[in-house]
Amino acid sequence: MNTRRDFLHKLTASAIALPVLSAFNSQEKKYAPAKKYDGPVLRVAICGLGSYGTRVADAMRDCKQAKLVGAVSGTPSKLTDWQSKYGIPAKNCYNYETLDEIKNNPDIDAVYVTTPNSLHKPLILRVAKTGKHAISEKPMAVNAKDAQDMVDACKKAGVKLLVGYRMHFEPKTLEVIRMRKAGEMGKILFFQGLTGFRIGDPTQWRLNKQLAGGGSMMDIGIYAINGARYMVGEDPIWVTAQETKTDHEKFKEGVDETITFQFGFPSGAQASCLSSYNMNNLDKFFLNGEKGWAEMVPSTGYGPIKGRTNKGELDFPHVTHQTVQMEEFSAILLQGKQPPVPVDGEEGVKDMKIIDAIYAAVKSGKKEKLNL
Amino acid sequence: MNTRRDFLHKLTASAIALPVLSAFNSQEKKYAPAKKYDGPVLRVAICGLGSYGTRVADAMRDCKQAKLVGAVSGTPSKLTDWQSKYGIPAKNCYNYETLDEIKNNPDIDAVYVTTPNSLHKPLILRVAKTGKHAISEKPMAVNAKDAQDMVDACKKAGVKLLVGYRMHFEPKTLEVIRMRKAGEMGKILFFQGLTGFRIGDPTQWRLNKQLAGGGSMMDIGIYAINGARYMVGEDPIWVTAQETKTDHEKFKEGVDETITFQFGFPSGAQASCLSSYNMNNLDKFFLNGEKGWAEMVPSTGYGPIKGRTNKGELDFPHVTHQTVQMEEFSAILLQGKQPPVPVDGEEGVKDMKIIDAIYAAVKSGKKEKLNL
Repeated sequence: MNTRRDFLHKLTASAIALPVLSAFNSQEKKYAPAKKYDGPVLRVAICGLGSYGTRVADAMRDCKQAKLVGAVSGTPSKLTDWQSKYGIPAKNCYNYETLDEIKNNPDIDAVYVTTPNSLHKPLILRVAKTGKHAISEKPMAVNAKDAQDMVDACKKAGVKLLVGYRMHFEPKTLEVIRMRKAGEMGKILFFQGLTGFRIGDPTQWRLNKQLAGGGSMMDIGIYAINGARYMVGEDPIWVTAQETKTDHEKFKEGVDETITFQFGFPSGAQASCLSSYNMNNLDKFFLNGEKGWAEMVPSTGYGPIKGRTNKGELDFPHVTHQTVQMEEFSAILLQGKQPPVPVDGEEGVKDMKIIDAIYAAVKSGKKEKLNL
Repeated sequence: MNTRRDFLHKLTASAIALPVLSAFNSQEKKYAPAKKYDGPVLRVAICGLGSYGTRVADAMRDCKQAKLVGAVSGTPSKLTDWQSKYGIPAKNCYNYETLDEIKNNPDIDAVYVTTPNSLHKPLILRVAKTGKHAISEKPMAVNAKDAQDMVDACKKAGVKLLVGYRMHFEPKTLEVIRMRKAGEMGKILFFQGLTGFRIGDPTQWRLNKQLAGGGSMMDIGIYAINGARYMVGEDPIWVTAQETKTDHEKFKEGVDETITFQFGFPSGAQASCLSSYNMNNLDKFFLNGEKGWAEMVPSTGYGPIKGRTNKGELDFPHVTHQTVQMEEFSAILLQGKQPPVPVDGEEGVKDMKIIDAIYAAVKSGKKEKLNL
């Protein structure tokens, strides 16, 4: 049986390890190997040492502008494992009782929360109080209200809040966005995002409403939602959605199996998307404009993104998304750099408002208006 | 500016003229060149000598089981043109005043109506009264009630009624249907049909509500509707739909520019489709099952259909769809052959009920139930 891990690993299998990469060079439209870096380094603690936390930690080995220096976990053995595996000093390790003491640790700049979804909010609220910058994996919360609370708390505490939108730094994705912005596709008319896979182990937290906050929409659907926004370049003004559940045992009340959803945008463009925990691997974006188009398959997997446009194949080299994300997060948090597509809390709130509206549209069976 | 003709011609450009082909051999999964044919020949009159009527006439040059023998037109010069171009005797030519006299012509077996959509019903009703078999181009009418009236009239007159569903005989399409029926894709979960092109000349009948009965849905959307049914192998039980209109001058009241629509099927499968008169050429089908999938691009154009499945490339030879359709229609009408996918009036009524429901769903903004 497929698992999410299998799925994402498969997409990664052909990834080529590249030398450490510096920021995206929009003029050359290439990621160029970093020159010797002597700027500020973001010192990061990861909170939640599960499979995604481990993926980020591994990716950070190649970072020059960011460094993994700390860890937070409720499982003592994980903390000792990480100390040896990633060279993390014991003094930078915390559990959920001691987490708040990070405020007294001058060697940590930011805490990246990679726990199950519903824990993002309480943990980010605690991180904000430590005065450290907060990074939340996406979805940043399980609904828009919680997400807004996180934004407000970080603002009040005077810390920055970023969300792990790794695709916002992916070179092929950025090239499509550049083409769209430059008008090379003409007026944008239609976006399609299909994201799905067959989820395995029924006991995992992703199928637990209390921890995940929902089902496939909270895991893989958010890629199509966020993708619709950065590909079309607008925020939707309405949403319709239809749910199908074929396995009520595996996908309990409040855990969505398959949802199709549609967006209308101010310009008149439409989007048609799918999120599913019960499909063969689906990872397709299609953007259609009056003068051009882009097709990306895979479009959001961890491995190399592949795509072509009306101009031909997208031939940018693969970069490990989490490596580049953390390099860029360093530049944003420490040097005030503006990312090509927003990655802040407000960006996350928008996606959560859309998810709320999708779930509402499934229930109402009607078009739900959005005001983002 | 693109026109429908340009669009369809482009798709046809690479078609390879093949020798006359006999019926699909489901055992060999190939169309094999026809052996010497000495069975009954369907003698056809075409009613409506526009671009599609001409396409059918040209395709029938390669038929062995069907022969173009007559023509019906309101334009005398078209009738004389067709007499010389296709060797049609003057005695088999009719206009809209004399059409009913076909009943006295023993040299015509069937009349194929290829006029604008809204004229199908009154003309098929007249054909039925002549006692000749009736063939309607699709959409067979402009709503389900009219379509049902056509079925009833033909039944009452004791003639058969077929609808020009050319894809129902297309070899690659049939192979995907065979795979699905044989369970080679497992349980079917999702279908996506995107059909659209940028329509040209704003004065053409396809943009006239009185003649077309609607907009893109009545022209190109029906391919996604019908395709959803033959690919999934079920009839939908609900539909939702969303319309966008960006050009109110070109697409007047009742003429749809772009509609996204979704189906739910009894098994729990879902479909997500697009019909548009304002997109770059879009002609994509995608069928996703638990164990396999099929992707066809182009999926319904006049030229060679291209596709691949989880088993690999679909390598069946291209056949001119209208040639095969007319060969098969001959076998159905004269020899009682059962087509692989229905092409009768009842099949057409189902699609019209769905189109009615799509337009209703656009208006209501709600899920419309279907009982086909």
